[in-house]
Amino acid sequence: MAVRGCFLSIRLQTQKFSDLEEKLCSPSQLHPKPEVSSLVFGKYFTDHMLEIGWNANKGWEKPVISPLHDLQIHPGAKVLHYAIELFEGMKAYRGDDGRLRLFRPDRNMIRMLNTAKRVSLPEFDMEEMIKCIKRLIQIDRDWIPHSNTSSLYIRPTFIATDPSLGVAATNSALLYVVLCPVGPYFTSGFKPISLLADPQYVRSWPGGCGSSKMGANYAPTIYIQKQAEKQGHQQVLWLYGDDHQLTEVGTMNIFIFMLNKKGERELVTPPLDGLILPGVTRLSLLELAREWKEFHVTERNITMAEIVEAHAENRLLEVFGAGTACVVCPVANISYQNRDYKMPAVESPLSQRFFKTMSDIHYGRLQHKWAVDIE
Amino acid sequence: MAVRGCFLSIRLQTQKFSDLEEKLCSPSQLHPKPEVSSLVFGKYFTDHMLEIGWNANKGWEKPVISPLHDLQIHPGAKVLHYAIELFEGMKAYRGDDGRLRLFRPDRNMIRMLNTAKRVSLPEFDMEEMIKCIKRLIQIDRDWIPHSNTSSLYIRPTFIATDPSLGVAATNSALLYVVLCPVGPYFTSGFKPISLLADPQYVRSWPGGCGSSKMGANYAPTIYIQKQAEKQGHQQVLWLYGDDHQLTEVGTMNIFIFMLNKKGERELVTPPLDGLILPGVTRLSLLELAREWKEFHVTERNITMAEIVEAHAENRLLEVFGAGTACVVCPVANISYQNRDYKMPAVESPLSQRFFKTMSDIHYGRLQHKWAVDIE
Repeated sequence: MAVRGCFLSIRLQTQKFSDLEEKLCSPSQLHPKPEVSSLVFGKYFTDHMLEIGWNANKGWEKPVISPLHDLQIHPGAKVLHYAIELFEGMKAYRGDDGRLRLFRPDRNMIRMLNTAKRVSLPEFDMEEMIKCIKRLIQIDRDWIPHSNTSSLYIRPTFIATDPSLGVAATNSALLYVVLCPVGPYFTSGFKPISLLADPQYVRSWPGGCGSSKMGANYAPTIYIQKQAEKQGHQQVLWLYGDDHQLTEVGTMNIFIFMLNKKGERELVTPPLDGLILPGVTRLSLLELAREWKEFHVTERNITMAEIVEAHAENRLLEVFGAGTACVVCPVANISYQNRDYKMPAVESPLSQRFFKTMSDIHYGRLQHKWAVDIE
Repeated sequence: MAVRGCFLSIRLQTQKFSDLEEKLCSPSQLHPKPEVSSLVFGKYFTDHMLEIGWNANKGWEKPVISPLHDLQIHPGAKVLHYAIELFEGMKAYRGDDGRLRLFRPDRNMIRMLNTAKRVSLPEFDMEEMIKCIKRLIQIDRDWIPHSNTSSLYIRPTFIATDPSLGVAATNSALLYVVLCPVGPYFTSGFKPISLLADPQYVRSWPGGCGSSKMGANYAPTIYIQKQAEKQGHQQVLWLYGDDHQLTEVGTMNIFIFMLNKKGERELVTPPLDGLILPGVTRLSLLELAREWKEFHVTERNITMAEIVEAHAENRLLEVFGAGTACVVCPVANISYQNRDYKMPAVESPLSQRFFKTMSDIHYGRLQHKWAVDIE
């Protein structure tokens, strides 16, 4: 009984912020920071990383923050063979007032827990995770650009490290977090992008895992993304079903602002039906628009036929994407069945208003409960 | 011109067997070999591994065989985030005559090349790869069990190592091969297994990547596999479509041996329509059966309704899986819509005959072009 009690107590102490061990860089180990103008998404990493190990027998280990380093991974580790892996994307901002803020980290942690379940990785305590992430950001706070077009991208990652080739749940895993100072996701900045909507490619389907942020949803899209780029488009608009429903853009959720058949303004985005990722920016734009009460806000299926019809009848006002990396990204064109559907020029676009409101919250110009102080 | 010529010549020399560098274990680095009776699939690895690096600027590096070691992987590597990874599964056998043989390695390499294209990893020379793999096996030949229920499982793996978080093709990659002495895949040996066929879970779909051997096809299946195990089944039989077509078992292709409505014997397996993996064992069984000319051999869609009907009319003779890991695996039961469909007991089952023929080829008791001498 004594031994059992001892094991139990070890389990309860783990993954806790209070157990966090810090092994910080010596001054000579610190890296020079890139120029803000040279920031490419996800190319530069900060000086430190957070790691928390897990194994089926002992449970969670204590969190460790140490200098950014290569991971030592057995060549038979399940992450390298069966893609037992997941990630999240969130951001920290340096406000105009100099204070650091996270944006709705609880939403990312809830999604991460849901994905962990779907990909058979263990549960973790999200409150403790947020505390550890905040501490990592504090340590590398000098990496957060003094610029309100830039931010610190936070990449929690969770991988199955068990060195065993059976297709089965893992007995060991590593949760880690790396940080990247980033500029705008698209090198074009807030410039509108062009989407390829080709029904022959399908990202996700009922009974699959399209609503989870697991690596497995991304690898198959790279090939199609390259086809889109070859044809001069920046991203793929993924369709589903014989009626070519719009789903999402892979790195963003999709929004359509249009006049409905009654001539009323309606903001439409596809519903969380298991096919699309439940984006935190998507949720936030929906909540903002519902607060504003200026137009209809609808989560419903919308087909390419409806887009084509609204386009022909000049009822299509704007199309834009929403995601953590880009925040809001206007769409200039949708290429579908060998035709380009160009979006009209709009005065004071809704996408720009969303972007400004979100930015005001991110950079502390607008006090809002979604912005969580780091220190 | 001179510089250009020089680069070209470096590119042409790479990935070649003739450039292979060998850094072999010292005697003290060699590991003890496990007992044949304790072999669990994919748990024990041999002393050495093969690695070939690639990057977008310089192309392929020279192959290196060195002691099995952890890989040093940047935490931002694309394999850990977007599952840009693929693998193959093949086997080497120690024949009754003591000679070592590979089984149809060209088929695995062709599939690996196809998967590489789909997952946006670079092309490689399959002939050179086979030569390097043969050499690796020769070096670790003492790991191949002296047992004709065992073999050496060969796991070529290909991962994207580029440390950059953009969702895009990789600029660097590592192709490596590890070896595992293995016993029977299922701990039950050649004992029949039970399959869960639940239409609410879908493995693959048109416009997806179900016919490629990439990690992304496996991670989403683990959760469902656990559900099957909880209900007392060994594997999942994946269905597709409103008519519940049989597709595959995830680690095996599926075969149905039955009497058709005319009372004729027919061997049915689902067609290569993009939803299923083009198995090398699947192909081999089809080729054997077509040589035998004793019954109809058909690649066609078959639905659960047809299985249920044939079962009710006592026309279902056998169901079995086929794959490299298990070779041939009889199915005793399919659980579908809360009913168990038990397979009848058969005298001299076809699955057993396939298994014996394949084993005879593997272990050199039957001379056959599919068995490729290693030395």
